[in-house]
Formats: sequence, structure tokens, C-alpha cells
Amino acid sequence: MPTTPAYAAPSARAALGPFTVERREPRPHDVLIDILYCGVCHSDIHQARDEWGGATFPMVPGHEIVGKVSRVGSAVTTFKAGDTVGVGCFVDSCRECPQCLQGEEQYCDQGMVDTYNSHDRDGQPTYGGYSTRITVDSKYVLRIPEGIPLERAAPLLCAGITTYSPLRRFGLKAGDALAVVGLGGLGHMAVKLGKALGAEVTVLSTSPSKREGALALGATHFAATSDKATFKTLANKFDFVLDTVSAPHDYNAYLRLLKTDGTMILVGAPEAPTPVAAFSLIGRRRRLVGSLIGGIRETQEMLDFCAKHQVASDVEVIPIQHINDAYERMLKGDVRYRFVVDTASLNAK
Amino acid sequence: MPTTPAYAAPSARAALGPFTVERREPRPHDVLIDILYCGVCHSDIHQARDEWGGATFPMVPGHEIVGKVSRVGSAVTTFKAGDTVGVGCFVDSCRECPQCLQGEEQYCDQGMVDTYNSHDRDGQPTYGGYSTRITVDSKYVLRIPEGIPLERAAPLLCAGITTYSPLRRFGLKAGDALAVVGLGGLGHMAVKLGKALGAEVTVLSTSPSKREGALALGATHFAATSDKATFKTLANKFDFVLDTVSAPHDYNAYLRLLKTDGTMILVGAPEAPTPVAAFSLIGRRRRLVGSLIGGIRETQEMLDFCAKHQVASDVEVIPIQHINDAYERMLKGDVRYRFVVDTASLNAK
Repeated sequence: MPTTPAYAAPSARAALGPFTVERREPRPHDVLIDILYCGVCHSDIHQARDEWGGATFPMVPGHEIVGKVSRVGSAVTTFKAGDTVGVGCFVDSCRECPQCLQGEEQYCDQGMVDTYNSHDRDGQPTYGGYSTRITVDSKYVLRIPEGIPLERAAPLLCAGITTYSPLRRFGLKAGDALAVVGLGGLGHMAVKLGKALGAEVTVLSTSPSKREGALALGATHFAATSDKATFKTLANKFDFVLDTVSAPHDYNAYLRLLKTDGTMILVGAPEAPTPVAAFSLIGRRRRLVGSLIGGIRETQEMLDFCAKHQVASDVEVIPIQHINDAYERMLKGDVRYRFVVDTASLNAK
Repeated sequence: MPTTPAYAAPSARAALGPFTVERREPRPHDVLIDILYCGVCHSDIHQARDEWGGATFPMVPGHEIVGKVSRVGSAVTTFKAGDTVGVGCFVDSCRECPQCLQGEEQYCDQGMVDTYNSHDRDGQPTYGGYSTRITVDSKYVLRIPEGIPLERAAPLLCAGITTYSPLRRFGLKAGDALAVVGLGGLGHMAVKLGKALGAEVTVLSTSPSKREGALALGATHFAATSDKATFKTLANKFDFVLDTVSAPHDYNAYLRLLKTDGTMILVGAPEAPTPVAAFSLIGRRRRLVGSLIGGIRETQEMLDFCAKHQVASDVEVIPIQHINDAYERMLKGDVRYRFVVDTASLNAK
């Protein structure tokens, strides 16, 4: 197969630049995908800069992939050329552990094979969606339903499922009071999905300037966490707090916003451990939980839910040549709310 | 009504000694109880020494009360003189908030009226079970079923319900793997109740010397947490970790013992907040939760469960005159596993 244009980080300290990857010829169960769009996730930056450790270079980031099937392996019956498909954060898993057997591949006992910065089960490095095509086992490919603009569908593959999965798993019901902490890529999806699930959504953000945007996304209320009164006024008010923030912050202050039996869901991960007072949990039987993306079955469910409820990401489409600037803007919170790479730009001369 | 012999802490720094309290004449809905036994909870020490702040003195501790009804108010239909009854950690609540209406009075929005070191809704101080009788509204009185020796029933009113409630609430099932952290008053009940609920119980303790006792209580396994290999060997093994320890310890080490979707339940409360790494929760969708005793309905359910399954506390019965020594022994972990005061000793000359 001819080489595939891509963008890669050559090392943790270097800017991303042009690169080429070899994609494998489709095996019997594989799907070859022409990539159209790839969302830019904050974890792309963490990994390209080796902030989580263990990165392998050169690295082609990108795990919010949408494209068209160009070819399928001989045994594939679920997809055909021309289908609109997606690939999320992982492209394989052991398929045998209890979690894989339950369709919760993200918690695979052997560790899922990440879409990039990982190794296939045959030992080859994986390269992500900042490229023009990718070969993926059909079991790990999603179907993008009609009705969602494709560039706005891409971020659903990570930001969408990361917020949808815990809201469903931990039992958000219509009428529940949901606080979303942080209004970035994850937070803006949490507002839209929470509202579509029938919750009354309050956005909590350090920046009072985000009020208007929060309400435009569907939030009923906004409260600035820079105002200390917020934590008194909203004490014991929420069934769920969905915390998307990875900067250091006081979990106890947010736990105290939960009603009895309320649940605070962590999907952001501050680098350092955060102190938790046992009484914050014991006094009202509160829960502090974590959640990691979602399995293939649930990701498909989420995509279908989004099509039905007209939910999609708010995006700023960029050519790949702007990726290093985009990273800098993301670090300043200067994007509403997700950058998406138009991979046609990889063919530009 | 004649005065009632009791033992009280006159101040946070003084030993407990003889005292007398006035119990109210039964109102229409009240039950007057002759106290036979009262368990000695670690929180008695915390409060008698004002370690949690806000204590009122003189203080008569004791919230694991078992006795016989001597008289009932005119409107009481659920109890009669001679009935064997119990009183736990609270004797009233607002009766109107969502939690009270659901029978979860321990999470009352107005705050439950604690059995001691609190104030009745009419403003009178409450005095606990280190005394020979008590007047309590019948809605907050438990029935002690036949078949449990009364001195061994007393600790069920706090240590029993504190461990039973979260195991039920968070869904422990027969066959589940349960780790009990700490083998004191709470821990030994958790082992017995976990086993009676069908779980395979492992005791984790800093003291290798507790192995034999743990197995005798019904644990299948024991592991010393002083042995660092324990945390590797048991990683990802448990559906539930029930943590009864109030000394400082690393929550992350115990969270990592949970399987995917596992739950760590805090019933002990270290004084200082404990650092929690978000990745300890996110990586396997784990839960860190707290739980506070249980409501009246669930406490009755627990007592009936204990009678049916022949579960009772292992106790050392003492006269009240030994209470100060007992506190010192508890602080050294030198009791297997609960002191219980024989209140007949309060009538001794």
C-alpha cells in the first residue's frame, strides 16, 4: 500500500510536522478508512509532549476519527466501501477478559490498544488520525449515523463518549440536577448530552466570561466558582457533578454540592492526588467515581443518541498546518469548543 | 420521675465518673426503657474528649443501647412493657425532609438528634446509654428479635448497622470478594455480616497477629498490609473494600485492590483529608463512597437478619466502673472486639 501522509511529533520537545506512515493491507476482518476529519483532544497534547510518561516517537496523535470506508477485508460483513465510520480511542483489546466479553473494552485486563502511542497486538506501533487513512479491525469501528455533520461528529468519539458513558452508567434521570465543572471540549459535550438526557444543567466555571456560552449550549444556570458564595448557595443541590477539570482544584468543595446519594464523576485527571475528606462522603452517602471513555457498543449507542437528539460538537475546523498553534490556543482555553483537523489539508503541497 | 444513675464526662479533659440525669416522663408516643447493656463505640471517646469539636458537657455517652420497655405513652401501639428493645445513634429527626420520608433519618436535612451530645427538638440536652434508663419516641426504637444474647446485640445498633447498610446499599452479592480493612469493632462486624451475606471475605490489617482472629470470625483470607507484596498480590481482586480505619492511610493503595466497577466504602474517618489520585478511580471506573450508620427501617432489617443468620458481636462485658480503662485499651486496639457496659453496675454502691 502506498505510504500515507500524516503529521507527527518527532519528540516530546519538538513541534509536529509532516510525516508518512505505512498502513497495513486489510486483513480478513479489517476495514480501510479514508479519514476526513480528526478531532484534537487535550490528551493529544499530553501525549505528544510525553507529560504522562512512556510515549513513543515519532507520534501521530488523533483519536476522534471520522471517514469513509474505502475497502474491507474478505470476512467483513458489517461495513462496505462508502460507509461513513468512526474510530475512537482504541483499535483493539484482548477480547477474552471479563470486561471485553461485556463490551467494556476500555477496561481490558490486558490494556486496550490505544489508537496511537501504543502497539498493536502484533507489536507494530499505532498511529492516529492526523493522517489520511487508517486500517482498523471492523469490531472496533463505529458507524456514524446520518444527520450529524461529519466534522461535528468527530469529537463525539472521545469527548462525547467520555461524558455520555458515566451519565448513563451512574444513572442520570430526566429531571436530575447536573453540575458540569469546566467548559472545554468535555464540558461542552456534557452540557449538551446532559440536557438531551433531560437533566437541568448548571455550568460551574472559574471564568464568568463563559456564562453566555454555557447558556447557549443549553445550560439552565451558570455559576462562577471564583465567587465563594457559589459553594454556599449551591450546597446539597445536585444529583450529579461531572468534573472535567484537570487543573488542581478542591474536590471537597464540589462534593458538598451533592445531595444525599449524589455522585461526583471525575473524567479530568489532575496530575497530583487531591485531598478528600472522608466526612465529605460519609455525611450524605456521597460517591466519588471515575470513568474512562466507553466501550464500542456504548459508543455506538451514544452516536445513535446524538443523531436522534441532534447533538453534535461545536467545532473550529483547521488545516493540519495549524496544529501547533491550535495546541497553544487549547492551553489558553481559546477554542469553542473543539478543534477538528480537515485531513484534506494533508494532501496540500 | 426519680433521677437516673449514669456515668458522664464532666469535661473534655476529665475521666468519666458517676452522674445523674433526669429522664422525661413518657409523652403519648414515648417509650421508657430500662437499659440493660450499652456498647462502647470509638466515637464515645472522640466525643467525650471533644476531638470532633462542639461537645457539650457533662456528657453521658453511649449509643448502642439494649433494654426492656418499662412503660409506654398512651398513643404507643407498637411496643408494650416487657418488650426487648434497642436504641441506636439517634433518637429523633425532622420527619419531613426527603430523607426522613424515605426512612433514611440519618441523613436528615435538619440533622438527626444524636442519642447523646446533642439537643432534643425541644432544646433539652440528650444523654446516652451509660445510664439505667432512657425515654425515646417509639418511632426511633428498635425491636431486638429473640435469639441474640442481649449483651452481644448492643453493638449491632451502631457497629452492626454501620457495616450492614453500605454492603446492602452498594449491592454486595453472594460470591462477591469483600476486603475488610481494619479489625476492630466495625471490622469484626463487617466480617461476620459480609460472610452472612455470602461474600468471600479477606481481612486486611496492619497487624499480622490478627490473622487467627480474622479467620475465627469467618474470613476466608487474611493479608498483612505491613507486607508490601499484599498490594501487588491482591491488585484488582475485590468487588468491595470496606474501610473501617480512622488512622491516616493511603486510599489509593486500597482503591487499586478493586476490580473494574468495584466500590471502596469509607466508614472510618481520618481527621485529615486523604489524597486521592483521579487515575485510581478513572482507570477501572472505581467508586469511593461514604456511608453513615443506617435508618430505623434498615436497622430493624439488620437486627432481624442477624437473628436469622446467628450473627452477633463478640464482646467483653464490663462494669461501668472500668470505662476509663476500657477507653485506654480501645486506643491500643486491646479488645476483641467490643466493650459492652452492664448497666446493672450503675446501681452498685
